[in-house]
Amino acid sequence: MTTRRRYALTLEYDGAPFVGWQRQDNGLSVQQVLEEAAARLNNGVPPLAVAAGRTDAGVHAEGQVAEIEIAAGELPPERVREALNFHTRPHPVSAVRAAVAPEGWSARFSAVRRGYRYRILNRRARPALDIGRVWHVQGRLDTEAMHAAAQALLGRHDFSAFRAASCQAKTAERTLDRLDVSRLGDEVVVTAEARSFLHHQVRNLVGTLAMVGLGRRGPEWPRRVLDGRDRTRAGQTAPAEGLCFVFVRYNVEPEWT
Amino acid sequence: MTTRRRYALTLEYDGAPFVGWQRQDNGLSVQQVLEEAAARLNNGVPPLAVAAGRTDAGVHAEGQVAEIEIAAGELPPERVREALNFHTRPHPVSAVRAAVAPEGWSARFSAVRRGYRYRILNRRARPALDIGRVWHVQGRLDTEAMHAAAQALLGRHDFSAFRAASCQAKTAERTLDRLDVSRLGDEVVVTAEARSFLHHQVRNLVGTLAMVGLGRRGPEWPRRVLDGRDRTRAGQTAPAEGLCFVFVRYNVEPEWT
Repeated sequence: MTTRRRYALTLEYDGAPFVGWQRQDNGLSVQQVLEEAAARLNNGVPPLAVAAGRTDAGVHAEGQVAEIEIAAGELPPERVREALNFHTRPHPVSAVRAAVAPEGWSARFSAVRRGYRYRILNRRARPALDIGRVWHVQGRLDTEAMHAAAQALLGRHDFSAFRAASCQAKTAERTLDRLDVSRLGDEVVVTAEARSFLHHQVRNLVGTLAMVGLGRRGPEWPRRVLDGRDRTRAGQTAPAEGLCFVFVRYNVEPEWT
Repeated sequence: MTTRRRYALTLEYDGAPFVGWQRQDNGLSVQQVLEEAAARLNNGVPPLAVAAGRTDAGVHAEGQVAEIEIAAGELPPERVREALNFHTRPHPVSAVRAAVAPEGWSARFSAVRRGYRYRILNRRARPALDIGRVWHVQGRLDTEAMHAAAQALLGRHDFSAFRAASCQAKTAERTLDRLDVSRLGDEVVVTAEARSFLHHQVRNLVGTLAMVGLGRRGPEWPRRVLDGRDRTRAGQTAPAEGLCFVFVRYNVEPEWT
């Protein structure tokens, strides 16, 4: 009988070719690519992979974290990482780090902080190098107004106004720890951090802040939307392709290699 | 009779789908995409586009500069830029800036400084998000040794050792003004600046510095290679996909919009 062992993985992926993290009938998911690669280390049976966050179709990841249990003896984590990176080819999914999962650790439920980056290409000309990686906004964005508006959303609130209709969370109460808007040349970056987010929360926040950046609404408006708790009053959901899941933090961090 | 006018363009493109800047029989070039788009503004006739640098197949550009003469009356440069960005679709070529070309100005011959960036992804795991944008080097690179070695190559020299066999330049004398190697996390970036470069010069320099970074050669080796003027003694030509043509500078800069 082979020993079963649970591994933690840090994943990088290009969201473009996938229906999202989660398995679905209508196309290939990151989860399926990972599980089918892991089957090669699990007597041919795809094990269940659980992720810290279920990213939507088109959303990228630099630092998604997942856990997977396989029956491959006491395989060192770097060998698991290398085997997965061999078998996930040619899909744009790469295990960047691996570790033996700590006792009692859950990729999803032990996470204490999640970080996202949203990239906006803010210029007249359409993107060439960053197609599929940015939201292209042609009108000039006032990032100082966006940043000021964002600061009024920090803290613990009912984020119903920024939640997808499909969101399955029991409560819309969340604590937003960071929402920064900055510009580097033609690129505007929104950085969002919280223990957890509602479905579409970051994209709805970005779409709402963009209305402020374009001068169509004042910097006090996003806070009024928040207080109204009415999704229909917020801005559009910013496109998936600008979003990247950057990191997950744990109180007990796996010993990554 | 329609007035002919010469325009300067700053171009961004993804090198992956192209045979390079220059028109060739064996596939689509950036030049062809641009000239065919410009034909729509030139009575259906593709005008000649001349670039500051003829990038190779797979090499990207953020700041290539080209000039083109079209018979479209006194069309403002921003209208030329927008029309080109409409007609180059869906190819990953975008005119980021445009200007009326100054009297006597040449995109190629008036350039006084050219800048390139070479990106190396230096980690075990293969790239997922940066496929086609980086050279993947698995062994740990000592970037301080690389940077030190690079500094010994600055100044005016005969760069025959770093020149492609196919290079058509009359002389191999060039003045290398900047060759910096720095690390940001898993990414190693080489920044190269000169008035002009020989064919494959940046990629040959990077391939040679990588030998130092991997510890296979000492930091004094690239200078010895330079002094030997023998291409067969240098390191490999680093892959095209890590290279990006970042900027071109002129003494008389076009009035970009």
